Amino acid sequence: MAAPFSEDELIARYFAPMAGPGALGLRDDAALLSPPPGCDLVLTKDAIVASVHFFADDPPGAIARKALRVNLSDLAAKGAEPLGFLLALALTKEQTPDWLAAFAQALSEDAALFRCSLLGGDTVKTPGALTISITALGSVPAGRMVPRTGAKAGDFIYVSGTIGDAALGLQVRLAQYWADRLETTHKAFLRDRYLLPQPRQALAPPLRDFAHGAMDISDGLVGDCAKMLRVSGVTGEIDLARMPLSEAAAEAIGIKPELFDLAVTGGDDYEILCTVAPEKADAFEAAAHQAGISVTRIGIVREGQGAPVFRGRDGALKNFAQGSYAHF
Amino acid sequence: MAAPFSEDELIARYFAPMAGPGALGLRDDAALLSPPPGCDLVLTKDAIVASVHFFADDPPGAIARKALRVNLSDLAAKGAEPLGFLLALALTKEQTPDWLAAFAQALSEDAALFRCSLLGGDTVKTPGALTISITALGSVPAGRMVPRTGAKAGDFIYVSGTIGDAALGLQVRLAQYWADRLETTHKAFLRDRYLLPQPRQALAPPLRDFAHGAMDISDGLVGDCAKMLRVSGVTGEIDLARMPLSEAAAEAIGIKPELFDLAVTGGDDYEILCTVAPEKADAFEAAAHQAGISVTRIGIVREGQGAPVFRGRDGALKNFAQGSYAHF
Repeated sequence: MAAPFSEDELIARYFAPMAGPGALGLRDDAALLSPPPGCDLVLTKDAIVASVHFFADDPPGAIARKALRVNLSDLAAKGAEPLGFLLALALTKEQTPDWLAAFAQALSEDAALFRCSLLGGDTVKTPGALTISITALGSVPAGRMVPRTGAKAGDFIYVSGTIGDAALGLQVRLAQYWADRLETTHKAFLRDRYLLPQPRQALAPPLRDFAHGAMDISDGLVGDCAKMLRVSGVTGEIDLARMPLSEAAAEAIGIKPELFDLAVTGGDDYEILCTVAPEKADAFEAAAHQAGISVTRIGIVREGQGAPVFRGRDGALKNFAQGSYAHF
Repeated sequence: MAAPFSEDELIARYFAPMAGPGALGLRDDAALLSPPPGCDLVLTKDAIVASVHFFADDPPGAIARKALRVNLSDLAAKGAEPLGFLLALALTKEQTPDWLAAFAQALSEDAALFRCSLLGGDTVKTPGALTISITALGSVPAGRMVPRTGAKAGDFIYVSGTIGDAALGLQVRLAQYWADRLETTHKAFLRDRYLLPQPRQALAPPLRDFAHGAMDISDGLVGDCAKMLRVSGVTGEIDLARMPLSEAAAEAIGIKPELFDLAVTGGDDYEILCTVAPEKADAFEAAAHQAGISVTRIGIVREGQGAPVFRGRDGALKNFAQGSYAHF
């Protein structure tokens, strides 16, 4: 590594300043957490790897934020409020002191923004790819975590925000020819949506109050929706014509209509997919609106076991050869 | 990767069978934990990387056990009882289905042995080195975690087990010439002590009851002892003549006396270093004996700020140029 630091110096210099109260100044091997009384803990762990989940030359601040935010997105989907996180950072020879300073600065800003402080972790060197593994902890009132397996026949299916921006943003990043025809602001919007997930933390209370089942969409809407219905022991109908698209995504799809399929199967949305009983739909929509998060009803849960039915924008049934992004 | 699995198949096949009750069958993005009432949570996160912390051709079961045990060692040092763990596994193309089966089998056995069940995690691919990042959670009665910063002037300094076996075992693994002169059983003992840490979980209750300060020794006794005293705002005197050595280590040092310095500065002991008030020393020793863990008094904590004094086996002061293994 270019930075001539011992592990202790590296921690003291870059990470101790952002440590939360339970982190014991990062001078211990362990962190201490007194869970809020009457709460369950929700735990999630997502790792991101250079050349797989991000580009090694992405800005260090964006890498830091993505590493934390993909975990915060999981907590939000469970209706949980963040408590803190642990960070394992496997550094290569490429990370300079400037890189580390920018990484730590952005991580610190996001920790403050999302009220999720650094509790502890580990810093190691790797001969391989830069890897960031984060474990995030959240809390819900006891018994109130929203499971992925909770979808019930008759529920309405909702998504937050807009779908497909990040998958299209990755294509923009890869300089696909059609991207040059996009409006400049749209191009920047899509690229930013790929680079920087927006965890829907404000949706956590409405999910706790009204949703039967929820997950965050990280591997593509179509595949993740099929997965949530399958693990809930149900099936469903999804009307892709109702899919919420950003203006930028709509412009891209206008230029090249096949991009619609990419938008609904591509990864990295980090929006929330959830199901809500019809009689609670109005209250859920109102609470989401109140929280400043747009939600769109895209389908309905049905009894049964088979794959869900996806109806295309022309009303015809769609068959997705590859429903979701597979890591392997 | 040689294994033609999706991430979901891989999880269902190898990891779901060992999942604990809070893991929700590993079908959710998150795990759920209802902390024991009246307890604090202790959290630790250690990552191990191929070619840095283990050899890529070590048996997959040994890699799995090491990844979990280095974390359990941290929990034990804090006086905590294990609750569960999250696993992030970054796999290269080299891990075959047989490798994964052996890895999962050993991890499952250790999870049962140490009563620390799998709660959740993430499986990703990496173009780089095989990397295993584990976050382990433990509990202590509220307010009873043993901090690293707790050493007090006048305390006796103790270590558990024997020191230096793993550092010597690594040299055996690297086929240093002197290793051929060791008794076969001693050679195997040292190699095994490098490969497979033995977390001193049984020492957790005596530490909670009697220790002021504690940490696990992972970066060498000399450096870790200096570190614990420094963060506690004290100094101390350590009598290296009292250092507990295994018969195998004693034989190696008999063959090549310079190995003594390696034994007390080398890494990977995963023994416990702690300080206990003199009036509680007898009770601590009795409780440790009752728990089946040998402990040895090696020094005393003194008021002051400077580096601790290490007295060699000849009674003269020792000066260690490199007190501990530095990761960077």
